[in-house]
Amino acid sequence: MDISPVSRSSNRLDPYVDRYAARTAGMTQSEIRALFAVASRPEVVSLAGGMPNISGLPLDVVAQAVDGVVRENGTVAMQYGSGQGIEELREQITDVMSLEAIEAHPDDVVITVGSQQAVDLVTRIFCDPGDVVICEAPSYVGALGVFKSYQCDVVHAEMDADGLVPDALRSAVAATRAAGKKIKFLYTIPNFHNPAGVTMSLERRHEIVEICAEADILILEDNPYGLLGFDGEPMPAMRSVSSENIIYLGSFSKTFAPGFRVGWALAPHTVREKLVLAQESATLCPPQFSQMAISSYLTNHDWQGQIKQFREMYRERRDAMVGALEDLMPAGCHWNVPAGGFYVWLTLPQGVNAKAMLPRAVTARVAYVPGTAFFADGFGSSSMRLSYCYPTPERIREGVRRLAGVIEDEMELRQTFGATDRANPLPASAEYPSTDTQ
Amino acid sequence: MDISPVSRSSNRLDPYVDRYAARTAGMTQSEIRALFAVASRPEVVSLAGGMPNISGLPLDVVAQAVDGVVRENGTVAMQYGSGQGIEELREQITDVMSLEAIEAHPDDVVITVGSQQAVDLVTRIFCDPGDVVICEAPSYVGALGVFKSYQCDVVHAEMDADGLVPDALRSAVAATRAAGKKIKFLYTIPNFHNPAGVTMSLERRHEIVEICAEADILILEDNPYGLLGFDGEPMPAMRSVSSENIIYLGSFSKTFAPGFRVGWALAPHTVREKLVLAQESATLCPPQFSQMAISSYLTNHDWQGQIKQFREMYRERRDAMVGALEDLMPAGCHWNVPAGGFYVWLTLPQGVNAKAMLPRAVTARVAYVPGTAFFADGFGSSSMRLSYCYPTPERIREGVRRLAGVIEDEMELRQTFGATDRANPLPASAEYPSTDTQ
Repeated sequence: MDISPVSRSSNRLDPYVDRYAARTAGMTQSEIRALFAVASRPEVVSLAGGMPNISGLPLDVVAQAVDGVVRENGTVAMQYGSGQGIEELREQITDVMSLEAIEAHPDDVVITVGSQQAVDLVTRIFCDPGDVVICEAPSYVGALGVFKSYQCDVVHAEMDADGLVPDALRSAVAATRAAGKKIKFLYTIPNFHNPAGVTMSLERRHEIVEICAEADILILEDNPYGLLGFDGEPMPAMRSVSSENIIYLGSFSKTFAPGFRVGWALAPHTVREKLVLAQESATLCPPQFSQMAISSYLTNHDWQGQIKQFREMYRERRDAMVGALEDLMPAGCHWNVPAGGFYVWLTLPQGVNAKAMLPRAVTARVAYVPGTAFFADGFGSSSMRLSYCYPTPERIREGVRRLAGVIEDEMELRQTFGATDRANPLPASAEYPSTDTQ
Repeated sequence: MDISPVSRSSNRLDPYVDRYAARTAGMTQSEIRALFAVASRPEVVSLAGGMPNISGLPLDVVAQAVDGVVRENGTVAMQYGSGQGIEELREQITDVMSLEAIEAHPDDVVITVGSQQAVDLVTRIFCDPGDVVICEAPSYVGALGVFKSYQCDVVHAEMDADGLVPDALRSAVAATRAAGKKIKFLYTIPNFHNPAGVTMSLERRHEIVEICAEADILILEDNPYGLLGFDGEPMPAMRSVSSENIIYLGSFSKTFAPGFRVGWALAPHTVREKLVLAQESATLCPPQFSQMAISSYLTNHDWQGQIKQFREMYRERRDAMVGALEDLMPAGCHWNVPAGGFYVWLTLPQGVNAKAMLPRAVTARVAYVPGTAFFADGFGSSSMRLSYCYPTPERIREGVRRLAGVIEDEMELRQTFGATDRANPLPASAEYPSTDTQ
């Protein structure tokens, strides 16, 4: 079973190898992508992917929306459009953001091909090779991939139960500047963090915004999960604390559906202008049809009711996972209880290596993402991300049962033969402090 | 009337001005984009835009296609997908390409967000700052924008009635290499060139492919218009001459509709792998819904019959434009008769500057794109691109009538007061040889 991160076909002799740009060396298959082929087999319980569970979407409502877009506005919907995106949708997006206390003008919103493209375009306009982006430890694998592809240096700053630790941010800024490097922005996921599962407290939001304002550092607030909290009202966004110095990213991928690829950036006006130019260069314009389909869905459907349904469904799955972890995991494992979103971050007993263990887990028909995928610097081998978003509660429990068995076997092997931790020579104590665990 | 290329809002003080990446200095609004606001007023006949005329598309067929995609495959169509794009559509794309004698495997096709994104991704994986891209003189403004945003140096090579001139390419290669610069690829639009309107002869295709193979230069063959020829069968693509050393770009934007933003790259296998990684970094995956909608349209509709209708419609408009030019243009103007596509390239009488004249043309309610937009080096001021794709034949004739009046006024002014050519200090003789004129 080949689950090595580099597929065999990549090992073919590449006659173009000397011609690629320097940045292309940084484009490698992520550990998540490499896993997809095996994790998607039906017999494997995948706790690896971050695919939203959209089986609850009302297909007849969506079908009516797209049918109506073609029949009533087809020659507009199928034509080229503005690089910034259609105005009606940008207005509706300001309504969506108002749920997190953001006051914004539609003119400062740029539609992107999913919020992934927003991360790409922001990095494109701000980062020269060697510039530093500060990220949480751990951070979103897809953003780390973008930063790497633009030849940025990522500096991680640790989190705790309340999110990014202010003193860790201060230290990261000071150390980076002492080393003579330019910090271009802080990349943060304040809500239901991917992969750490933690949420930044309101007090921290103010403090982090203040630190960045004083240090003159732009904040890139990535918020795909903010409306998917299990308790009470959504937390006010960092962008609601200050409209300056913050670029806020949103997405319909988790609150509606990812297949239309519609996300957005809300940016200070002059930055917004650069983003539109970058978008025009990248794609001419985001898909007009997708935008009008989503706009019609928002107009004609109780989208907030739909999000509430999603929240209940994901809460049930979160409960299934946390319950199974409590019942089945061996002593020495630690994890957090996320208040929303898709992910639990699990830390293994000392000496057990999540990356080295993965082939044995897949053999036992359960998949996860090793923690190393979420660090730019090789850390994270003692942790893993477990997703509860997609499988049914029963499958989640079965997956955790299989995983617990694999971990117990690893622990037993260690006790019998000593350390098997060949994949990561770093001692466990060299790791970043683990995020909040129960 | 403000039609300056830089909008007023760009002149606001930008507090981020010192923080942008070096590449961002190369991101400026194209002359075409700046024109959109004025050219789209109903009283202006726009011969400026390159929007396909999709009013002939069967909306009921498309509505059925998108409705069916949601009802029958909604949870797949609205989900994340492969970074490379869905296999069924990639297979259909090989059928489309076979019309131009291309033999290809679906595994070597990557779906992109319009072929614009393919130009972006190819440049991303190959070009470091300072690398050279050889382009025809003139070349597609959107590609020049991409090359600029990646800080490439563009070296132009002239065309004649049969497309890119082999000796001009040889000279460009020799001169660039003598200057110690790296050439990353030749960017060429062999069919119904945008903006020049010319088509590369079959003999030339072989010769250019041979020159590039000998010089070890990759070819980026951009072919959005290849199936929109007015005479006989489509010309075999350069990619049909050789499958090595050529990346071929195609698009559904002109043969179906641009609003879904679906284009593709056909690349040598190892390059294709890099393109997929770049696509995943840029957008995670191209829009799944768009891909399935187009796949369904191709399956359920006589798409070749539709392309035939488009061809007839554009031929009628080409005839209207060429007829009007013959009847109305003053002596000293030269233009070519395109055998397909959307564009005529018109060269003005000596001393008349297309860029300087544009405000007066817009005042006379006709718009075009000055030739300078299509050169990376300031040339082209004596020429303009005229698009016949979108307006009706009657409007085209009216637009040409207005334009002829503006040119006559300019010529009269020159005769009365001498040269008014303030916008371009270069003498007309310093221009690239104009492309084929009748």
